[in-house]
This record gives sequence, C-alpha cells and structure tokens, in this order.
Amino acid sequence: MFIQIIDILGTVAFAISGVLVALDKRMDAFGVLIIAFVTAVGGGSLRDVMVGIEPVSWMTNMTYVYVIIGSAAFAVLLRNKIAYLRTSLFLFDTIGIGLYTVVGIETALIAGLHPIICIALGTMTACFGGVIRDILCNEIPVIFRKEIYATACILGGMTYFLLRKFVADNNFIFVVAGAVVIATRLLAVKFKISLPSLYKTGDDLAA
Amino acid sequence: MFIQIIDILGTVAFAISGVLVALDKRMDAFGVLIIAFVTAVGGGSLRDVMVGIEPVSWMTNMTYVYVIIGSAAFAVLLRNKIAYLRTSLFLFDTIGIGLYTVVGIETALIAGLHPIICIALGTMTACFGGVIRDILCNEIPVIFRKEIYATACILGGMTYFLLRKFVADNNFIFVVAGAVVIATRLLAVKFKISLPSLYKTGDDLAA
Amino acid sequence: MFIQIIDILGTVAFAISGVLVALDKRMDAFGVLIIAFVTAVGGGSLRDVMVGIEPVSWMTNMTYVYVIIGSAAFAVLLRNKIAYLRTSLFLFDTIGIGLYTVVGIETALIAGLHPIICIALGTMTACFGGVIRDILCNEIPVIFRKEIYATACILGGMTYFLLRKFVADNNFIFVVAGAVVIATRLLAVKFKISLPSLYKTGDDLAA
Repeated sequence: MFIQIIDILGTVAFAISGVLVALDKRMDAFGVLIIAFVTAVGGGSLRDVMVGIEPVSWMTNMTYVYVIIGSAAFAVLLRNKIAYLRTSLFLFDTIGIGLYTVVGIETALIAGLHPIICIALGTMTACFGGVIRDILCNEIPVIFRKEIYATACILGGMTYFLLRKFVADNNFIFVVAGAVVIATRLLAVKFKISLPSLYKTGDDLAA
Repeated sequence: MFIQIIDILGTVAFAISGVLVALDKRMDAFGVLIIAFVTAVGGGSLRDVMVGIEPVSWMTNMTYVYVIIGSAAFAVLLRNKIAYLRTSLFLFDTIGIGLYTVVGIETALIAGLHPIICIALGTMTACFGGVIRDILCNEIPVIFRKEIYATACILGGMTYFLLRKFVADNNFIFVVAGAVVIATRLLAVKFKISLPSLYKTGDDLAA
Repeated sequence: MFIQIIDILGTVAFAISGVLVALDKRMDAFGVLIIAFVTAVGGGSLRDVMVGIEPVSWMTNMTYVYVIIGSAAFAVLLRNKIAYLRTSLFLFDTIGIGLYTVVGIETALIAGLHPIICIALGTMTACFGGVIRDILCNEIPVIFRKEIYATACILGGMTYFLLRKFVADNNFIFVVAGAVVIATRLLAVKFKISLPSLYKTGDDLAA
C-alpha cells in the first residue's frame, strides 16, 4: 500500500517531466501524451523486454494508464502554474527513481541474474524513461551529460547487495537501498556535487 | 485475401515513405533499404516485442521482405517521377494505417489485454514505424507535431470496442473500425483539420 | 576458445569506439560507460529481443560486462594516446563484425528462421550497436551514410548460405563466412571502395 502510493507519485512526476519537455518542443496534444507515457513507463518496458517479462508490466495494470493520462492533462492545463510545483515535482521524481531502482533490481533478481546485471537493470528502470524521452525529442539524453542521477541509482543498488549479505529482512533492505538513492540525489543537488569531469579546462575551451 | 492485398499496399506505401525520407538525408543504398524496412515493420515489431510474440511476426512471413525490397528498389529508381504517385501513396498509406490499427488491436486482444491497451497497441502498430524512421533520420517524429494521424487510429480503436458491445460479426467490426481510421484521416487532410493547438499566439511568437 | 578470444577483441573494439564518440560529445563518466555498453551489446540485444531469447545473452555472461568496463576505463585514461592504437582498433572492430555476423546468423538459424532473415539478423548483430550509439549521441547513424560495413556483413551472410549447400563442416563455413566479412571491409577501406552513389552530381550541389 505504502509502496503503491510512492509508485504512483513517481509515475506522476515522470509523466509531468515528459509533458514539460514535449511542450518545450511545441508538440501537439498527441505528442505530449506519448512523451508523458514513454517517460513514465519506458525504463520499465525496456527492462521487461530484455528480461523477458511479456506483456510488459504496465500493460497489465491499468492504474498506470489512468495516472499518466490524468497527470498529462493536469500538466497541460496548469502549465503556466507548474513552476510553483517545481520543488514537489523534484521530490516526487527523486522518490520515484529510488523506488524504481529497487523494483528493477528485484525484478532482475527473480529472473536469476547476477548482482551487477541487477544493478544495471535497476538503474535502467529508473533512468531510461528519461533517455527515451530525450531521444524522441531529438536531444542528447540529459543524464549522460550533467546530473548525479544514474550514479545515485548505482550507489543504491550497491547498498542493496551489500545489505543482503548481512540482513535477512527484505523490507528493510528495500527501504534502505531506496533511501540511499534518494539521499544521494538530494545531497548532490543541494551541494551541487557532480561527477568529476573527464575534461581539462583546455578541453573546455576547445569545445 | 482481401486483407492480404490491403496489407501489401500498406507495406508498399510505408516502405516508399521511408525511402523518400532516407533519400532526403542522402543516405547510401544500404541506409535507404534499412529505413524502408524499419518504416514498414517497426511499429509491428515494437508491438510484438512488448506483447511477447517472438520471433516478431514479419520474420516468419517472407512476403513482407520481398515487398519491401521491391518497393525500395522501385522508389529509388523512379524517385524523380514519384511526385506523380503522391496521391496514390497517400491513399495506400491511409489504407495501411487503417488496417495496421485493427490488426494491432486484434493482436493485443488475443493476448488478453485491456481495451485501452489494445487501442494503444493498435495506434503503435500504425504509427511507430514512422516514429522510428524519423528518429533514425535525426528528426523529431512528424506525427508528434502536426498531423491528424494517431488521432485517427485512436478514433478507429474506440469505434472497434464500441461496436463490440452491440455487434457479433467480427468481420463487420474489423471493416468499420478500419474505415473510421481511413475516413478520419482523409477528412482531416481534405479540410485541413488539426488538433486544437496547445499554444497561444503569444507562445508562437516566442518559439 | 579461439572464438572466445575473437569475441573479446571485438567487444573491446566496439566498447572503445563507443567511448571515443561519447567523449567527443563531452558526456560525463556515466554517459561514457553507457555508450560503451550500448555499442558493444546493443546489436546482440536487439537480435535477442526480436528472436525471443530472453534474458538477452550478455546478461547471463559476466565476461562481457567486465571486458566492457575495463575497456571503457582504459580508453578514458589513455584517450590522448589512443590515436596510436587506431590501426589495431580498426582491425579488432573488423574482426568483431565478422564474428558477430556469423554468431547472429547461427542464432537465427537455431530459431528456425529463413536464410534472408538470418542474414538480416547477422547484419543487425554486427551493426546496430553502432546505430544505437549514434542515435543516443544525436547523430544520423554513420553506417547509413558512407561506409562499406553492413554490405560486408551481407556478403559474408550470403557466403554462409552458399557454402551450406555444398559443405558439411560447420566450423569451416563459420570461418570462411567471417573471413569474407573481414576481407570485404579491409579491401573496401584500403581501396576506398564505397557503394555506388544514389545521387547525381547535380543532386550534390543542391544538398
């Protein structure tokens, strides 16, 4: 029940982030709706297809469909006011990736995959909706360029498997690993931490 | 038999539309062939992969392969004359999306999915070949921006499920739903109807 | 054993080619790693998903994961020196596509598919990692524009099925078909052979 509420909040945040990017690109109503969908369910769909869970999970649970359509309509109607919700949306989104990461890991574990693959699939679940959104909008995916986002998911995933060595309580592991994702992202944004640059200043001038 | 002819006409139109976009991007012969393929079978492949029908259906029916290779060769050879065929191509393409929508819906129904998901998969079957074509050619997908295209598929899908409540004859439903897609698209193009804009004139100036 | 070494060399070359493109786009460390992965395993993943082999094969063999992470780290650290390795990388890459093509064909054969589909899947295995890399980096895929690359794979694939009519020894067919891919690509690059242009000089001026 608790998890379902978080899941819905995450879906709302992902769908709205899709709407905002699509409006920026001046898409029509149909395009906006598709981008909202893809952002919310794209990561999980890619995971399901690669692991072999078909039909992909959102297709058998209408809750997602209604939540995404509702969020998209809400975001389109109130788009001039949505700046006021920016902090809430950021929080929902961050909670969402925490949850999606752990759900992705557990899906991969059930399929009997290696911990490193599980962490990769957890990160994919959380991040690739945004990647597909950016590709459809003809942008280089933002998470490849400047945000501590995937890195937070990877840290959460490592926590998950570290805890599994010492703790028997699955719910506890689930919550702590998700919290590590959320805390890492919040701290990184608050203190403007980013990955160490691969490029020297001289490189930057050349860019 | 009748359906198979329509299916082939739709495939021809989709493949040729791929060739024309690829030639615009000055791709080489191999690139042109791939884009023709992807445009014709991309939507159905995505549907099959998400529903779990594998190998995806065009791989087990060589007719598609021969039709696409033939259409691509034809379009490359006659590309300076193809302007004369524009009306025929538009008709084939419109008939094609009508058929692809209904085929997608029925595939999803057989997999036991919810009507809304079926309509989404029907629309995906008809439209996502073009979306993948545009992504491979580094364009924002045209159907997200300005055409009554997906909307026609969605209306046809709604007709399909409305009729199912009252009519027992599946062939009748199939034909009427497909005809709604075709008629919507033809009327929209003839009378220059598009989705109501989400943007105000002031927004347009800012773009 | 011999095949495994070639496979690893191909994976190294593909991963490094991904790193170089990602560095050009000034991606952060995470983006570089993802592009390295996608370039190395993207073609095989797409093949597996379309044929229905799930979980996709690299997920059940950790060798790939370690080789890709190692190659990516190596390429990032030594990126200023990597120009000296350009010839080796070109060779690895060419050997890699030879091998990947034949592996793709045999995977499709086991799934009972038609020879033309098998050749298409072999070519996809060898080439589509690079295609997805280019899409994620917001470029029109390079193999659609100017290289004898896919064409080499198609020739190798045709050799494979031609030999199967006359030769019983599968290992022999495997090696010869792979060698045809490799030789075609080497000769094409050495003698600057490309596909005959679809465009007239007049077209070029207009471009």
